Amino acid sequence: MSSTIEKSTGKSDKLVRKKIDELGEELAYLQRKSRELGIPVLIIVEGLSAAGKGTLINRIIQPLDPRGFKVSCIASPNRDEQLRPFLWRFWRRTPSADRMAIFDRSWYRNLLDYTINRTLSEEELKKAYADVRAFERQLRDGGTVFFKIFLDISKKEQASRLAAMQGNPATAWRVNDAVLARHARYADYKIAVEIMFDETDEQEDFKWIKISAKDGRKAAAQALSKMVTGLTKRVNQEKAKAVPVMPVGRLPLFRSAPSLKKADLSQTLSKETYREMLAVRQERIEYLHHELYRQRIPMIMVYEGWDASGKGGNIRRLTEQMDPRGYEVIPTAAPNDVEKAHHYLWRFWNEFPKAGHVTIFDRSWYGRVLVERVEGFCTKEDWKRAYREINEMEENFHHFGTAIVKFWIHIDQDEQLRRFQARQENPKKQWKLHEEDWRNREKWKPYEEAVEEMFLRTHTRYAPWTIIEGNCKRFARIRALDVTIAAIEKRIAQRSK
Amino acid sequence: MSSTIEKSTGKSDKLVRKKIDELGEELAYLQRKSRELGIPVLIIVEGLSAAGKGTLINRIIQPLDPRGFKVSCIASPNRDEQLRPFLWRFWRRTPSADRMAIFDRSWYRNLLDYTINRTLSEEELKKAYADVRAFERQLRDGGTVFFKIFLDISKKEQASRLAAMQGNPATAWRVNDAVLARHARYADYKIAVEIMFDETDEQEDFKWIKISAKDGRKAAAQALSKMVTGLTKRVNQEKAKAVPVMPVGRLPLFRSAPSLKKADLSQTLSKETYREMLAVRQERIEYLHHELYRQRIPMIMVYEGWDASGKGGNIRRLTEQMDPRGYEVIPTAAPNDVEKAHHYLWRFWNEFPKAGHVTIFDRSWYGRVLVERVEGFCTKEDWKRAYREINEMEENFHHFGTAIVKFWIHIDQDEQLRRFQARQENPKKQWKLHEEDWRNREKWKPYEEAVEEMFLRTHTRYAPWTIIEGNCKRFARIRALDVTIAAIEKRIAQRSK
Repeated sequence: MSSTIEKSTGKSDKLVRKKIDELGEELAYLQRKSRELGIPVLIIVEGLSAAGKGTLINRIIQPLDPRGFKVSCIASPNRDEQLRPFLWRFWRRTPSADRMAIFDRSWYRNLLDYTINRTLSEEELKKAYADVRAFERQLRDGGTVFFKIFLDISKKEQASRLAAMQGNPATAWRVNDAVLARHARYADYKIAVEIMFDETDEQEDFKWIKISAKDGRKAAAQALSKMVTGLTKRVNQEKAKAVPVMPVGRLPLFRSAPSLKKADLSQTLSKETYREMLAVRQERIEYLHHELYRQRIPMIMVYEGWDASGKGGNIRRLTEQMDPRGYEVIPTAAPNDVEKAHHYLWRFWNEFPKAGHVTIFDRSWYGRVLVERVEGFCTKEDWKRAYREINEMEENFHHFGTAIVKFWIHIDQDEQLRRFQARQENPKKQWKLHEEDWRNREKWKPYEEAVEEMFLRTHTRYAPWTIIEGNCKRFARIRALDVTIAAIEKRIAQRSK
Repeated sequence: MSSTIEKSTGKSDKLVRKKIDELGEELAYLQRKSRELGIPVLIIVEGLSAAGKGTLINRIIQPLDPRGFKVSCIASPNRDEQLRPFLWRFWRRTPSADRMAIFDRSWYRNLLDYTINRTLSEEELKKAYADVRAFERQLRDGGTVFFKIFLDISKKEQASRLAAMQGNPATAWRVNDAVLARHARYADYKIAVEIMFDETDEQEDFKWIKISAKDGRKAAAQALSKMVTGLTKRVNQEKAKAVPVMPVGRLPLFRSAPSLKKADLSQTLSKETYREMLAVRQERIEYLHHELYRQRIPMIMVYEGWDASGKGGNIRRLTEQMDPRGYEVIPTAAPNDVEKAHHYLWRFWNEFPKAGHVTIFDRSWYGRVLVERVEGFCTKEDWKRAYREINEMEENFHHFGTAIVKFWIHIDQDEQLRRFQARQENPKKQWKLHEEDWRNREKWKPYEEAVEEMFLRTHTRYAPWTIIEGNCKRFARIRALDVTIAAIEKRIAQRSK
């Protein structure tokens, strides 16, 4: 294809080639520097058919060290991807701190298609763009440098390139009906592109690099030049350890949020009552689990709570009669080194269930505003920002129709001590108790503060918190089942409206 | 569904329940032990429709710590999976050293379907079973403990359970046409299952655990009991550090293999000739790359060679005119901690290209018999066994129609010294030279030995080695292009027969 999109000739061509070589060398240097400094780089290349995206990408990557980049070609979402929020497949591919990711097309592919085919209502489209802006800001605040390149091509130029491709036996097959249909709707695409610019071109760090595709080499030189400038700036900032984070602004407070102070921990259930109640609820949840599957509703459950509050046993009673093919329990421990090299939300996005399935997080992304805050594993800016990031992520899940339940299993300090001692004395349960548990216990007060702020900051309409009074394990199990059942029933009722 | 498959009642039922609880507790203990000792555990549950696989799996996982296991439900392969060798999706899901993987259905699902629908010829089916046996042996030799459970159900029992499910509004939808069609072909399935047992039930460590599905609780007790026995044995072995590896046996020698001694390093090309030859070949490879895509032929290229032999530059010339959406360069560095916790072939299986795409490995799985052997990063048994494992993997790729090219870029010691010195003197290239390179250079002799044995052990008909004489970089680039072009042409010619 390259031969059809090269226009420059003779002397000016030679100059451009030289420029490309020089810029390429600089980019390769900056790539190594970024890797050393742990700066993830994300380059997306958008543009209509025959704009020369592939050729441009090849010119970008030729000088680079392959140890540090990966090209992803974004096709239409496959079945697995369709069963998740549309940003899922992009979250999964976000680069780690020592990597450069290059996307041929991107999340904008979905958005352009939605606009042109009117798959989404105007309101839904607005929401999708809001999700995209939040996504880009989150990555940026997490340290990622963005380059969004748009290769612009006129209808006439597109027509002539498609004709040239058709005339060449090696490329004729690429000009299929879909390509021709898109060419015929060129004007619609241009409008969709304008909307895209309007929605996402506001701020300095997210500006589109708009380049004329007319001369492939000149386009490459321009793109490389922008990247070299941007990366140089960033590498110097990082060296000076002065990367400015976007101001968090005023965080919302949800005043209807629950509070530990109001929890009545004296509630209990007798063994007999419990058994009866449990059987009825497990049968009901088994049925509702099937219904979620039939209606393709995804569900996310978060279990947070004090050490020894009984999360594991609670989850077990919840899932005992559920079909294991339709749920998964994801325990959240300290991140491994691959996870550490990504945005802290990356590993949770990765675990988003297929529509119709249930994912139960035994501890979760709330670790950021709990353990990471209290133990100082992240900066104050990091955990402050996290409230908004978490709300945005959960809203994103909500837009996809996800049922969301969040539990804090609550016990008091005396009850915790009793349970720690019981574990200590029972050889079969000693493995459950760690040094760390005693240390955490010392910090009850700061944890309590963090928990209360978490409620206030993240008790949203679409993802509310429930405090499960846990001093009596039986009571807590029944309560968790009841809340879960009600949440599913509500979600199903909304769906069938 | 559980209610339809429970037969035991009264007193005997109580005993079975108690047995299940006790065994579950033991299994949970063994799970923790396996994790401590770094033993991966793989449990697969096979069985015809309505045999109660889901219920059995739920009984197995209830007592376990969710931090250590994952249930995978194996459906029909999706599009992405269809574009890879059939074992790809299972390799990707193999458990790491601290994990237990539970498969609801498995690779046997593919094999049973192939048998019943006669998708494969008898010879192809034999090959597929050989691939499966190699796969299981490789995992086992890598430390994985296997449990293969087959839940047997009579046609009569199956009919009655399906009828019961149809009668229950919560489960009726699950008895779809596909399930009924499979029920009608019950006899065919039984034959396919017998073939499966014949092909894969030979050796102690791979024996099927065949269980009657008639009584769900008794089946669970039997399965748990087998697992507890097997894991206890293994945990004790590991404690004694005496895990026996399958004998490697006599390794084949491919006498037609190339040898470093025979390479003529004096060959060179002038700049002008090189430029002309390069342009012609790059144009040809661009065309052939499209052809691979059109014909959905996957291609694997391996670049091995001495430090500073020019692999990077060689790959760059190869790919310069290729469409970046159709190839990927995978550089192989030391494994990260996730990779270390898996079988050493796991990460390479993960990178297998979609049919129609090219993956170029800059260093590869041959590290096992080169750097790992020479530096003592693995045991002698490990690298000895690797020859066979590598041949099996490549044969597996070959069965899938993959074009395979393997290069050793060869230079002599004098040339390497010149290049090291040139790097040292050029500030722009200093980053390419590491202390390690000098250390490796000291070990030229043992590396040479390892390289020669690698050729002799892995120069197969389907994945032959080519030594690229690399003292003259220009010559090496043209030579690599020529071999690649010939390999693709050969593959395409075979396809069109």
